[in-house]
Amino acid sequence: MTSTRPLPPDTYTVGIDFGSESGRAVVVRTRDGHTLAEAVTPYRHLVMDQALPDGTPLGREWALQHPQDYLDVLQQAVPEALKLSGVQPGEVVGVGIDFTACTVLPTLADGTPLCFLPDLAARPHAWVKLWKHHAAQPQADRINAVAAERGEPWLARYGNRVSSEWLFAKALQVLEEDPGIWARTERFIEAADWVVWQLTGTETRNACTAGYKAMVQDGRYPSREYFAALNPDFRDVTDLLGQTFAPLGACAGSLTAQAARWTGLPEGTPVAVANVDAHVTAPAAGVTGPGQLVAIMGTSTCHVLIGDTLADVPGMCGVVDGGIVPGAYGYEAGQSGVGDIFAWFVRHAVPAEYTAQAEREGLSVHALLEREAARQSPGQHGLIALDWWNGNRSVLVDANLSGVVVGMTLATRAPDLYRALIEATAFGTRVIVENFEANGVPVHELVIAGGLKRNRLLMQIYADVTGRPLSVLDAEQGPALGSAMHAAVAAGIYPDIHAAATAMGRVTRAAYLPVPEHVAVYDRLYAEYVTLHDYFGRGLNDVMKRLKSLAHAAGQPTPAAQVPQQVSA
Amino acid sequence: MTSTRPLPPDTYTVGIDFGSESGRAVVVRTRDGHTLAEAVTPYRHLVMDQALPDGTPLGREWALQHPQDYLDVLQQAVPEALKLSGVQPGEVVGVGIDFTACTVLPTLADGTPLCFLPDLAARPHAWVKLWKHHAAQPQADRINAVAAERGEPWLARYGNRVSSEWLFAKALQVLEEDPGIWARTERFIEAADWVVWQLTGTETRNACTAGYKAMVQDGRYPSREYFAALNPDFRDVTDLLGQTFAPLGACAGSLTAQAARWTGLPEGTPVAVANVDAHVTAPAAGVTGPGQLVAIMGTSTCHVLIGDTLADVPGMCGVVDGGIVPGAYGYEAGQSGVGDIFAWFVRHAVPAEYTAQAEREGLSVHALLEREAARQSPGQHGLIALDWWNGNRSVLVDANLSGVVVGMTLATRAPDLYRALIEATAFGTRVIVENFEANGVPVHELVIAGGLKRNRLLMQIYADVTGRPLSVLDAEQGPALGSAMHAAVAAGIYPDIHAAATAMGRVTRAAYLPVPEHVAVYDRLYAEYVTLHDYFGRGLNDVMKRLKSLAHAAGQPTPAAQVPQQVSA
Repeated sequence: MTSTRPLPPDTYTVGIDFGSESGRAVVVRTRDGHTLAEAVTPYRHLVMDQALPDGTPLGREWALQHPQDYLDVLQQAVPEALKLSGVQPGEVVGVGIDFTACTVLPTLADGTPLCFLPDLAARPHAWVKLWKHHAAQPQADRINAVAAERGEPWLARYGNRVSSEWLFAKALQVLEEDPGIWARTERFIEAADWVVWQLTGTETRNACTAGYKAMVQDGRYPSREYFAALNPDFRDVTDLLGQTFAPLGACAGSLTAQAARWTGLPEGTPVAVANVDAHVTAPAAGVTGPGQLVAIMGTSTCHVLIGDTLADVPGMCGVVDGGIVPGAYGYEAGQSGVGDIFAWFVRHAVPAEYTAQAEREGLSVHALLEREAARQSPGQHGLIALDWWNGNRSVLVDANLSGVVVGMTLATRAPDLYRALIEATAFGTRVIVENFEANGVPVHELVIAGGLKRNRLLMQIYADVTGRPLSVLDAEQGPALGSAMHAAVAAGIYPDIHAAATAMGRVTRAAYLPVPEHVAVYDRLYAEYVTLHDYFGRGLNDVMKRLKSLAHAAGQPTPAAQVPQQVSA
Repeated sequence: MTSTRPLPPDTYTVGIDFGSESGRAVVVRTRDGHTLAEAVTPYRHLVMDQALPDGTPLGREWALQHPQDYLDVLQQAVPEALKLSGVQPGEVVGVGIDFTACTVLPTLADGTPLCFLPDLAARPHAWVKLWKHHAAQPQADRINAVAAERGEPWLARYGNRVSSEWLFAKALQVLEEDPGIWARTERFIEAADWVVWQLTGTETRNACTAGYKAMVQDGRYPSREYFAALNPDFRDVTDLLGQTFAPLGACAGSLTAQAARWTGLPEGTPVAVANVDAHVTAPAAGVTGPGQLVAIMGTSTCHVLIGDTLADVPGMCGVVDGGIVPGAYGYEAGQSGVGDIFAWFVRHAVPAEYTAQAEREGLSVHALLEREAARQSPGQHGLIALDWWNGNRSVLVDANLSGVVVGMTLATRAPDLYRALIEATAFGTRVIVENFEANGVPVHELVIAGGLKRNRLLMQIYADVTGRPLSVLDAEQGPALGSAMHAAVAAGIYPDIHAAATAMGRVTRAAYLPVPEHVAVYDRLYAEYVTLHDYFGRGLNDVMKRLKSLAHAAGQPTPAAQVPQQVSA
């Protein structure tokens, strides 16, 4: 005899993903991760890389944002998604957010951005520095040199190279280029944590950005002596940062009355500690344990991977205890140009006949090239490329590398090159995978998220090149879904992110399997890739750097002088 | 007191240039080399690379021609040019021809092409093998291997590598693939010499093709023992060839009654010994002595250079006593892809926006790219390329090399790549120049002929890259002019080609001078080119060969498996 028990009423959480050009809110059912609705608010000021809103011009490699744009997302996308979902505000049990990183701003002690102060609004350093603000390279160079010289123990946790995109480079640039702004800075904070502060009235610092972007290792920042060695006035920089680091999935507080009015959600709704867009994608795809490398593939690719143990992996972006899920080590690596390279190719190297044919067939040029390239066998085009159009993030960590194609003949055609470029990025991923494995962090499977997962040829090539099955995130908005899952944990619906990911994670397992005959050919091509990778990338022939230096001397802007590291899926 | 003497009446010669797809006749004034008229006859059968006229299919890499097409040129272009010139037949004192080489055919003892015999017309090996017939590579491989093994002394005179395009490879292919045709072959002859035979009724063999294409050195072919080692039935191959070698500029005979009817010229008009199109361009540009390298730049580039002494220059195509002018050593080298590469780029790698803009401005895409690329300083694009789309003829002599581009970023645009490709071919020329100099054959100046001399950016880059002044052939039809000059020598108007070239040669001296600041930058880029050239080309990384072999295994035709060596200016 069985008795039927009525199901408990469904509950929902709101996930908000702050990208580089817009913010997106989703309403998700906590029972199974189903997304009921989503809404997007484009940032009114987008990325400010030429001038401030008042026309004040910006230097080369600058990239700023306007904090009001983030608040607009709370006031527009959230209520709109809620309305579209048909869910009642009272059924929403939690809110979670994720953000690009390191995206940072200086504020007063109460959280007011310095750029909101009328007397500072014309000063570029008062604004939010977006992740891809690349003007702090001189500071990053010093950060690396001094750390290496002093033998700073944390340096190995970042593959022995700190990026100009990270927090201390950006902070040091403020201090050195506009000391007046620095003097007025009472808090220096990730935009992710700042938004949670606006929602809850409470300042928190999430363990993920603290670890990956502010070099917190074993609970500590680098020493004051180290910072003083960079610049005596930088000695106490960490006083402007948080001193405790909230684990992911923890509750940061609850919605204030004001935030409740903004969002249309009940005052007191629990708000999760902020996440980073790439890392939060892992649980969205059901990944909360070791062995599955999650690749978030868009214009660039970010790889996140969980490990049980701490390993120093050369050339990775970083390893952070609790950086992806609490209680385990979160590893991060990246490829600085992926979709960007394909877009470059389609825009700048595909002849008119393909453009015209795509138009006739009602296809995108990408789709046409994908179809034509898919007709080839591996190796048939006779080409091999190095995928460094935008430098190399992992494992060489060198922004001054550049692209290579070997093997052109008079018979080479656009689909050949397109396929070779896809393969090059797959080889780049395999280098990262093998580097993790060689250093004690196993990778059994790849899980693909991000826009490129829709390119079936690319997916098959990645399976064939890495020799591993590919699973695919089965949600359009991975980061927002992940944020909604953290909201469910913060709200107590699930005891931890593992349980939430099991229930709410969305993934198609083994969507692509390696084809043995392809694997055999790609093993040979990969050996060629590695030889060229080491020749051009490990100092045997520094021609790329000399070419960039000549180009610079000839007055050419060097557009890829810095390496984007952040991916918005 | 001065007396005025009446000027002697002007005389004229006819030069006929047999190219790959048409034949061209010019009428030239012997006094000063002025071209009065020209006329072209396209070959009705062009290049037969798919099938014979009767539909018999041809194998891969085949390229045949129809001898009647050559006779049509005599019967159409010559009378037409004469008519256009207004010159009376009686004022024409000589005829000279030049031809692509090695372009050869089997004939009966009376010169009748075997393909004219009805019972043999369906047999591919009965036809003319055009210079770019590349199906005799297995034979060429054996020719090289056996020569190296036996230590044949003539091998060094050809840069230690004989091409599949040359005479014995083609002859051996006939013997081995169609012994029946070989058995019927009574003469095996260059089309150049065959045409002179048709004009004069007398078989001659010119010293130029005998030396460059049939390995005649010091007046001798390779030994019968050598040919027997290739194939016992090949032992007496040289019995089918000439045994004396007529110097360039000599009189081969005079027009027969039939040839007079064909051409509209008087019977008995002197006919010069046949020339090769590339080599005859040197005197056309006034070059009959050492130190000036003549580059005939078209789809590929052929370099000819006169030296006072005999030197073994590694990687050259060949050195022949009297190969360019009697009494001196004629050196030849080549680049197997030049204009071909630019054409490939414009056709297959330039995006629609440039095509559209060129159309709007009424320019060719080449001209648009040239203009845009000319705005750059040397080094500004940050790129370097290896110009091996069609393999490398000199100095590596390796058809299985392929193209490389290093340095792409997301900011790379079509004019950048276009310029880099031009530079790559200029670096390739500099390698050849420096190789000659390093081996004792001085090069003080470059003289440019061929269609690419019209590209002003390219010309300046060649001056800057080689650091040498460029002179430019000042005639549209260099080979035909050179042939007309040889006709003038054969007719006795001039005592030798030196005198003829002095009077009739057409050249603009020092049309482009190297710019010192450019030379300095290009010296640095050339060092990069040489490093990559040696890395990919001299066995440090044979990736290109492995890629071609993989492509071949994957079923890809390997279009550049052979290297064209012949240039029609």
